[in-house]
Amino acid sequence: MMKKTIRVEMLNIGDELLNGTAVNTNATWLCGRCMHEGVNVLAVTMVGDSLEEIMRALKRAAMRSDVVIITGGLGPTSDDRTKDAALAWFGGTMAPVTSEIERIRQLFAERGYPLTERNIQQGWIPDTAFSLGNPVGTAPGMEFRKDDTTFVFLPGVPAEMKAIFDQHFPRWFGHNEINGRFVFSEMITVGIGESFVAESLSEWQANLPKELSLAFLPSAGLVKIRLSCFSKDIKATQLKMNMLLSQAANHFPGDAFMTAGASWDEYFHRKMLSTDKTISTAESCTGGYLAHRITSVPGSSAIYRGSIVAYHNDIKEGFLDVPEKTLAAHGAVSSEVTAIMAENIRRKFQTDIGVAISGIAGPDGGTAEKPVGTVWIAVADGQQLHKKMFLMGSDRIRNIEKSAVMAMKMVLNLLTSQ
Amino acid sequence: MMKKTIRVEMLNIGDELLNGTAVNTNATWLCGRCMHEGVNVLAVTMVGDSLEEIMRALKRAAMRSDVVIITGGLGPTSDDRTKDAALAWFGGTMAPVTSEIERIRQLFAERGYPLTERNIQQGWIPDTAFSLGNPVGTAPGMEFRKDDTTFVFLPGVPAEMKAIFDQHFPRWFGHNEINGRFVFSEMITVGIGESFVAESLSEWQANLPKELSLAFLPSAGLVKIRLSCFSKDIKATQLKMNMLLSQAANHFPGDAFMTAGASWDEYFHRKMLSTDKTISTAESCTGGYLAHRITSVPGSSAIYRGSIVAYHNDIKEGFLDVPEKTLAAHGAVSSEVTAIMAENIRRKFQTDIGVAISGIAGPDGGTAEKPVGTVWIAVADGQQLHKKMFLMGSDRIRNIEKSAVMAMKMVLNLLTSQ
Repeated sequence: MMKKTIRVEMLNIGDELLNGTAVNTNATWLCGRCMHEGVNVLAVTMVGDSLEEIMRALKRAAMRSDVVIITGGLGPTSDDRTKDAALAWFGGTMAPVTSEIERIRQLFAERGYPLTERNIQQGWIPDTAFSLGNPVGTAPGMEFRKDDTTFVFLPGVPAEMKAIFDQHFPRWFGHNEINGRFVFSEMITVGIGESFVAESLSEWQANLPKELSLAFLPSAGLVKIRLSCFSKDIKATQLKMNMLLSQAANHFPGDAFMTAGASWDEYFHRKMLSTDKTISTAESCTGGYLAHRITSVPGSSAIYRGSIVAYHNDIKEGFLDVPEKTLAAHGAVSSEVTAIMAENIRRKFQTDIGVAISGIAGPDGGTAEKPVGTVWIAVADGQQLHKKMFLMGSDRIRNIEKSAVMAMKMVLNLLTSQ
Repeated sequence: MMKKTIRVEMLNIGDELLNGTAVNTNATWLCGRCMHEGVNVLAVTMVGDSLEEIMRALKRAAMRSDVVIITGGLGPTSDDRTKDAALAWFGGTMAPVTSEIERIRQLFAERGYPLTERNIQQGWIPDTAFSLGNPVGTAPGMEFRKDDTTFVFLPGVPAEMKAIFDQHFPRWFGHNEINGRFVFSEMITVGIGESFVAESLSEWQANLPKELSLAFLPSAGLVKIRLSCFSKDIKATQLKMNMLLSQAANHFPGDAFMTAGASWDEYFHRKMLSTDKTISTAESCTGGYLAHRITSVPGSSAIYRGSIVAYHNDIKEGFLDVPEKTLAAHGAVSSEVTAIMAENIRRKFQTDIGVAISGIAGPDGGTAEKPVGTVWIAVADGQQLHKKMFLMGSDRIRNIEKSAVMAMKMVLNLLTSQ
């Protein structure tokens, strides 16, 4: 029997999604997971915590989709209306799920919190639903079936939503075989603007096989280039895409990094680990953000020893031994000062590599000579000293992010130039 | 004549919204702007770059809304289908908008880019539309009217979308006067779980005036409590809401902070500034993240001098003078070690206040005695020394975030306890 492509849609519920307070990251995560399972998402709808609007959206979804994934509004407070809407739409009466209530009791006992009637009520769901146990929180998910459509209700808290989804999705998508699975292939290109990347790759892009989708995903200082498609022969497809991405990478010598599925921070961590070298940082304008990026990856203590965040010039003098006269002659944002900072943090913290950043993050503090966005970065390993000046924009947070990423890129370049 | 409340909805178009690649920040921004103009957004829909799905969504929106704001799919590449859908739905023929084409020519000349036929085509729109000039990019917006509904098409590029919206929205919302403008009132409650906050406030909540909406907005370590409503007398409403929030704050002595519209970091910055005191930090498990939070606010050099990120115990010994025998006897994650770190960073960096954090962020490194999520924080000002142990969860990033926020809270408590 020919299997059909299943039609999936999302419904995200919450006033915070419609009043400018919250960004709907749940939809993005769920759509990404669906794609990886070979399931195209038809549409995403967001409505507020309104019984009328939730029911209207459920009705519409029922007419066109095989699986409807709903998030939000399962919390313990009175502004959460999703359970009421489900009860009204699917019928039934509220009933306690003994196993869920027991789990909630245990969770509160473990954490030493007082258990309230509200918390217990989270373990009640309509008796027309199948309960989806929540391994990390108090609100269980619910699964309903009406006519030929499966309705899955998940909590809005991302960690709880993800945990329940990952445990149950094969059942919901089990009958999808026609398109094969979705295959992604990724790499990262660094320090080059998106339009320049697109321009450089226009000929390469024109020759791509028709079945492949190409995406440029820019973030502060980085553009990730991604190929994707549906395929039944995942291995062969992956190989072909990686070959094409290698060709693309050759357009950007020294600026392209084969990150595959890893985040930039994870990629940096792995590269450092593989060289068996340690690193320390001396930060001025980035104020600890580079240290944070490096230590956000589990196991970072294997490569990282620490940082001196020398926000004030006194700290640069007293703890990084930058001579007062160097600061006076060249200013804190200079090739000379960052070079000393990088070399001295390396020596003091006894690491293989020392990195220093000093700049004007903005919005204030710029001069005609050194406008906001001027950043000096130095990387030292005892033999080599790489220094570079960047002229970034006027957005403080973006300048901080881009500086950290550029410093990490300079470290990776130093590692390969030895 | 009685004016009616206008019904507004959003339609965001783009494959990237449905495949897990992009987060729909345009909807969040647009919803926020609508709310501030006194306009409730009914629903947000996202569909891919599919002629069929776009037309279906337009049809549905036409049935229920007075204003439909559509973003995305106006770009120059072949995967952008929005103009085709508009042409099919509203009729007409494509026609050049002379002023737009002239503007595109100028833009390319100024930037020194070669002008292609594709770029010129962006200046063509259906002749059934009113053109909305794009002050910052190449794709003009379009405005259609069909039956009693206004359809506004904006580019997906955030800067372009925002610029066009801000120039034209009064016309679209001009007939909305019945509800007045939207008023927000905010405060922050710290270090207490959402369900406990809701429980403590249940009586207060039951007595709230009916016209006010209440929201609990949790983030790592914090719950923000917000009241909002539509009002014509903004000043009086703001006063009433602030009074009610003061009552709510009284339920959480030492844990409630009147942040109003400020972010937590901005609030911390202002409080520190108002006391004229300086601060330095000594971080282990948070790896520079506390320093980053403090320095993410412009002007932070007035309150902040720097940090020693002592990720490795050698750094704690060598640069924060933690005795080797104290480390051996109590471990790095201990009351004793964090107390010494806080006092020594304060003295060494010559600040009024020193803060130290040491913990096990996870996912590895826990023991039976000190499980993952154990965090010690100490705050010292030369006279007082506040120390506290926290038992957090197993999520590394969340533990890092929560530790930084708890440390900032302890500093604020120290300031007011003097």
